[in-house]
Amino acid sequence: MNELLIDLDVHAKTALYEQIYEYIRTHISDGRLSCGERLPSTRLLAANLQISRSTVEAAYEQLVSEGYLEARPGSGYYVCDVGALYGVFKGHGALPQAAGGKKQEARETIRYNFLPGQIDSVHFPYSVWRRVNKEAILEMERDMVQAGHPQGEYAFRRTIADYLYQARGAVCAPERLIVGAGNEYLLQLLGQVIGPGRRVAMESPTYLQAYETFRNMGYEVDAVPMDGDGMLVSEIPQDGTCLAYVMPSHQFPLGTVMPLKRRLQLLAWAEEKEGRYIIEDDHDSEFRYKGKPIPSLQSLAGHGRVIYLGTFSNSIMPSIRISYMALPQELMEAYHEKCGFYASTVSKIQQMAVCRFMAGGYFGRHLNKMRGVYKEKRDHLIQLLRGRKWVKQIYGDHAGLHIVAELSCACTERALIACAAEDGIKLQGMSDCYIAGAQAHGGRPVLLLGFGNLTEKELSAGVEALDQCVEKAEKMCEKIE
Amino acid sequence: MNELLIDLDVHAKTALYEQIYEYIRTHISDGRLSCGERLPSTRLLAANLQISRSTVEAAYEQLVSEGYLEARPGSGYYVCDVGALYGVFKGHGALPQAAGGKKQEARETIRYNFLPGQIDSVHFPYSVWRRVNKEAILEMERDMVQAGHPQGEYAFRRTIADYLYQARGAVCAPERLIVGAGNEYLLQLLGQVIGPGRRVAMESPTYLQAYETFRNMGYEVDAVPMDGDGMLVSEIPQDGTCLAYVMPSHQFPLGTVMPLKRRLQLLAWAEEKEGRYIIEDDHDSEFRYKGKPIPSLQSLAGHGRVIYLGTFSNSIMPSIRISYMALPQELMEAYHEKCGFYASTVSKIQQMAVCRFMAGGYFGRHLNKMRGVYKEKRDHLIQLLRGRKWVKQIYGDHAGLHIVAELSCACTERALIACAAEDGIKLQGMSDCYIAGAQAHGGRPVLLLGFGNLTEKELSAGVEALDQCVEKAEKMCEKIE
Repeated sequence: MNELLIDLDVHAKTALYEQIYEYIRTHISDGRLSCGERLPSTRLLAANLQISRSTVEAAYEQLVSEGYLEARPGSGYYVCDVGALYGVFKGHGALPQAAGGKKQEARETIRYNFLPGQIDSVHFPYSVWRRVNKEAILEMERDMVQAGHPQGEYAFRRTIADYLYQARGAVCAPERLIVGAGNEYLLQLLGQVIGPGRRVAMESPTYLQAYETFRNMGYEVDAVPMDGDGMLVSEIPQDGTCLAYVMPSHQFPLGTVMPLKRRLQLLAWAEEKEGRYIIEDDHDSEFRYKGKPIPSLQSLAGHGRVIYLGTFSNSIMPSIRISYMALPQELMEAYHEKCGFYASTVSKIQQMAVCRFMAGGYFGRHLNKMRGVYKEKRDHLIQLLRGRKWVKQIYGDHAGLHIVAELSCACTERALIACAAEDGIKLQGMSDCYIAGAQAHGGRPVLLLGFGNLTEKELSAGVEALDQCVEKAEKMCEKIE
Repeated sequence: MNELLIDLDVHAKTALYEQIYEYIRTHISDGRLSCGERLPSTRLLAANLQISRSTVEAAYEQLVSEGYLEARPGSGYYVCDVGALYGVFKGHGALPQAAGGKKQEARETIRYNFLPGQIDSVHFPYSVWRRVNKEAILEMERDMVQAGHPQGEYAFRRTIADYLYQARGAVCAPERLIVGAGNEYLLQLLGQVIGPGRRVAMESPTYLQAYETFRNMGYEVDAVPMDGDGMLVSEIPQDGTCLAYVMPSHQFPLGTVMPLKRRLQLLAWAEEKEGRYIIEDDHDSEFRYKGKPIPSLQSLAGHGRVIYLGTFSNSIMPSIRISYMALPQELMEAYHEKCGFYASTVSKIQQMAVCRFMAGGYFGRHLNKMRGVYKEKRDHLIQLLRGRKWVKQIYGDHAGLHIVAELSCACTERALIACAAEDGIKLQGMSDCYIAGAQAHGGRPVLLLGFGNLTEKELSAGVEALDQCVEKAEKMCEKIE
């Protein structure tokens, strides 16, 4: 072949050499240029296209370096045998719109995101993070590419175990820790270890993702009433319920702390019958603003009836997707037998990066710093809300990344959330945390206000914007009445 | 406090300053040194321990930089308030052995690893990998820490969709792709989308991890007989079986390629009844050594009865834990409804690193290079085996990272594998790939010999070592008779 009919666009943002490169690469990829074919010389193509020869040379060189073309000295440029990979659809023509199109999923404009679970993105130690990632890759070198331990790398588990002991009083030997891609994944894994068809007791309101996960696993969920101390142990159905899912250090969404007496009651319930377990989700215990940290329930339980769940979603970042679960010894056998063949769901590189982040002391420092940062945000938000006449009561503010605000305004929760959404404000109402069929709170709206990723300025502006949303929602509800 | 009773070990591998650092850090962590306490001056401690003052200073400075100590000019070093994080067990004493011990899990010595699924660790582009990881973190900056899209980042899915179309003829809109932490995880997710209590048809022998996953999901598995063309479609039980799990481009472990006619039969089976689906596991289609690549089964199916599964385990590395699944449009609704709340199981950083690796052309080049590398290894292994009188037949050698060797030696498969294990040689027998209860191959041993991470030299030495194992196993079996 001696001609390439490249339709160059001199006004395009893409450089000319890139346009030539793209044209040839695409034609090789889809088979219109086939293996062994000789390309026009740089001189000839430059003349045909009326451009400088060095532009053509740049494109050809790029294609050579990427393995699409081969330069044979004294002879010219030839198409390489990339057919084995790209030649499937030889002569098939252009890509269909569905696969090749530039279509992007629609994005909503969010002005203020008050959803719980948002973390601060300003104070994250980005350069340290880059460093530990780089070092983790460098250190592992060839070991990096090979499959890791199904439970997670031993060094990482040991580091987590040390941390859990020091920070949470939880005693978890690395041998009983399983690292996994998020709490929901670990609950699914647990479901396979424990077996199908179980009944689990949950508080209501609760962390609804866990509820949905149990439902997807085919588990029956009993919504157990709670008081100011957490789950009412006496209300757990006696027949068949063998699991109790609780968040004793900081209940989501209410922020309730389960006192020692209730914890001991719950442990007694678990001990009463063979095969009963407590699932302790210790999701955001790192950020506590008042008093001493509360030791985990697991730390009380020498007898091994507690399954401990923790996550780096709040303490490092949710996008890293690393959680861990400590199983009691008596469940480890079932784990090895039924689930031991599953490869770890967390990238080895990310495990070792977090391991370095922890072992190097960066994690501890980051937590110390963020506790201060979040406390200031929380204090600022509370101050803002205290000045609002539409706010009746604030609670759940001693820990975590959100507070609960019970409102006194004359509108429904749903109306308020809808009005806010129209203004680009994301809100979560308490109603969305109740288990279907269980009794929910009535009357006035209750909001979970997350402050993690809003600056003080944004919090101020966001709460001011809420003033207007409340007004709008009240008018809307008035009309409907 | 003016004294620290540090028991220094001058013969230890750990530097003296690190020993001091560790001692103080541990004592702060477990509360034996408490907030506000003043440490002995560097001069005094150096004198007490009979070491140089600069050693003590190095340890103190490290502790200051990590936030454990505070240096007050003119006054000395004081313990910082890390109590909020580490103080749970104040005065509780030493860590229990289980959590704090240095115990490592036992490691077996492996001389030659012939297991299938091992990938080459010599030719991996480590520096490019470090670069794309670094760039991914830099590029995302603040966006990195926030939770990503449940199905995986859109840019990543689009890149995968383009690749699948070009390399596999598979038409998968990014909107129908779900990125997940490994094939087993994606099968579990699929199980939740399709619902509990289904029956799935599988070939036997097959990829047993998929079988075990289906069993853990509570699915019934029908082991369907196969011939040289793959699953015998006519043998799929008519009642209730609604899923067929196949690997048409390169069956594991046999290496069978399903010809067009059988593919069309299978598609016809799926179309016959509402709710029937084919799961196409396209696990190692990237490495094909003979003839043109075989388009995916999914590329034939315009009607959407094929669930396509792919992985980067072989093409990049198993430890990265990234797979993807393309669902037919009609299953997307159920996915959104039942599973849309699950966060992605793959770290956003790793997704974007692989996205850059692909979009930058490195992935294509890596595959091209590795195809050559693996072909040479395969050719070398085949040549070695052809010269052995204990090898009867070799097959499944046109693709993938292992070959199948049917042996003619007078010993059982189990005996041979056991003898090899004693010599540090890891082997997998065909017997381990049969579904429980289904008919297995009889008589002579059949091995799956992986060559991915063995050099030519190691292959030669490994096969020579196998000579001796065969001899040993034959003697062992003779005795038993």
